[in-house]
Amino acid sequence: MKLLYPTSLKLDVQSLEGFSVKLYPYDVTKPFPDEHVDAEILVTWTNTAANLKDGAQRLTKLRWIQSLAAGPNDVLNAGFDASKIPVTTGSGLHDHTVAEHTLGLLLVAARRFDEMRDYQLQGKWPGHLGGAQPDRPAGKFTTLRDANVVVWGFGNIAKRLTPLLVALGAHVKGVARSAGVRDGIEVVGEDQLPAVLPTTDALVMILPGSDSTRNALSAERIKLLPAHAWVVNVGRGTSVDEAALAKALNEGRLGGAALDVFETEPLPEASELWKAKNLVVSPHAAGGRPQGAEALIADNLRRFRAGQPLKNVI
Amino acid sequence: MKLLYPTSLKLDVQSLEGFSVKLYPYDVTKPFPDEHVDAEILVTWTNTAANLKDGAQRLTKLRWIQSLAAGPNDVLNAGFDASKIPVTTGSGLHDHTVAEHTLGLLLVAARRFDEMRDYQLQGKWPGHLGGAQPDRPAGKFTTLRDANVVVWGFGNIAKRLTPLLVALGAHVKGVARSAGVRDGIEVVGEDQLPAVLPTTDALVMILPGSDSTRNALSAERIKLLPAHAWVVNVGRGTSVDEAALAKALNEGRLGGAALDVFETEPLPEASELWKAKNLVVSPHAAGGRPQGAEALIADNLRRFRAGQPLKNVI
Repeated sequence: MKLLYPTSLKLDVQSLEGFSVKLYPYDVTKPFPDEHVDAEILVTWTNTAANLKDGAQRLTKLRWIQSLAAGPNDVLNAGFDASKIPVTTGSGLHDHTVAEHTLGLLLVAARRFDEMRDYQLQGKWPGHLGGAQPDRPAGKFTTLRDANVVVWGFGNIAKRLTPLLVALGAHVKGVARSAGVRDGIEVVGEDQLPAVLPTTDALVMILPGSDSTRNALSAERIKLLPAHAWVVNVGRGTSVDEAALAKALNEGRLGGAALDVFETEPLPEASELWKAKNLVVSPHAAGGRPQGAEALIADNLRRFRAGQPLKNVI
Repeated sequence: MKLLYPTSLKLDVQSLEGFSVKLYPYDVTKPFPDEHVDAEILVTWTNTAANLKDGAQRLTKLRWIQSLAAGPNDVLNAGFDASKIPVTTGSGLHDHTVAEHTLGLLLVAARRFDEMRDYQLQGKWPGHLGGAQPDRPAGKFTTLRDANVVVWGFGNIAKRLTPLLVALGAHVKGVARSAGVRDGIEVVGEDQLPAVLPTTDALVMILPGSDSTRNALSAERIKLLPAHAWVVNVGRGTSVDEAALAKALNEGRLGGAALDVFETEPLPEASELWKAKNLVVSPHAAGGRPQGAEALIADNLRRFRAGQPLKNVI
């Protein structure tokens, strides 16, 4: 049995030995080599669309695809048929790194490190952001302490992020398709958004990209947020109505937005988002560094060989 | 008995009643009113130098000064004699807010939100900061996970900050005048700096302003830091040799610096720090919002009336 692993990240390949599987590296930017088109297992990471398309056509013996990305969009877009070949994702490998970046964006928003930078570049001291300040003033998002933070999309990343927010004194509520209490945090259904959004100081969006999440943060829902609220999106750009968001920002109907993901990436030069008021552009930098990939691959290899259900099947 | 409290912050004065002390508000920017020069207790917050100097001359009955600032420098500079009138500080009232800001500056440094902003202002996508990234590369500070963070000055603020850093996966070590284990963190003496600095990814400075801390981070000590290390200063500007720091930054001998405090504030227009390479200017914004001031004043009022030792005496 043959497994192809990508050279686009550093993998401790030795830790994947012992499963009677031969391990071969491959270049994720080129067509697959002829001698490896009989591979039965493919591990992917930042593969080019052309490479994956080539794989979908020529790797006819595949029995399992392990993506290291949080979502399987690139694999599915290439034409692999997940109903015939099990596709497993790297869900869980990005929790820490995305949670850290999200916390960073929330602190940029609360402490206005973006505005401080603008002043610095002009050689000006932003006195209004320093010195004596009102403590937790009503109708402003200036600290996580006692802030109402709503996390929309309550999976692994939210579970990693939430304790950090709580440690900083935030009141965290989750929103997800199914309601319940998870890790001590109240998670409400999306039908509760009309009640939750008006009480939000910071809305963190961690929704996957899919037809059902398209424009989840619509013009109507943006209108339900208080004028001081910040939106932080680290999920997928398609889940926010970007035009409606830019309009609300420019009209001062929102406190600000810190976006790590966009409908089109890189953000096009002509996008109105670059200069929207109080908008922070982060270049899809939250994740991109799988952590613990070897353990996931090894566990799934073991399951595969034992005929057990794989982890993270889509 | 008469207590004067400042109108420069919102105080819940009702929570200070019941000690047989009459409470009068005063304006911290003006001379003290003639009818109140017989006050025995003075609470200060962001008083002007002129107001404090006036108080030092005319409030001849004072028996106790409660500052809400973390340090007593402004009170002492005005000429009050702490050997005759007990001065108590607001130490502890700024722990949360300074710790939050410090964490924010560390994340700005690791995730380079400053550089992202520079690109955004030019309408450019900083692709090198996003997408697929090496995970925890050696010789770079890109995440708090597994980063060696050294906190120099290990008081209340450090104790509030450290669990947040640990939760994010950092390896934290303290440096202080007296060594020991505090809250589970190893704190070494300043004599260990030659051993500690070369292993540091991020150095957080929370030193008070005093003669003994002047230029604590000297040119020699800066040289001991790795070329990728960041310096974050939220203590006092005088504790860093600013000229040596700017030189090290501009010569690429340091990863960067995020400074909330400066030798002279506001930072003078002519300062070379504005444009030093990889330097982030924050306008003394970490604290400035005492939290829990009423509880501290009430506790000290009770102690004062009971003849017990006051809290936070300098």
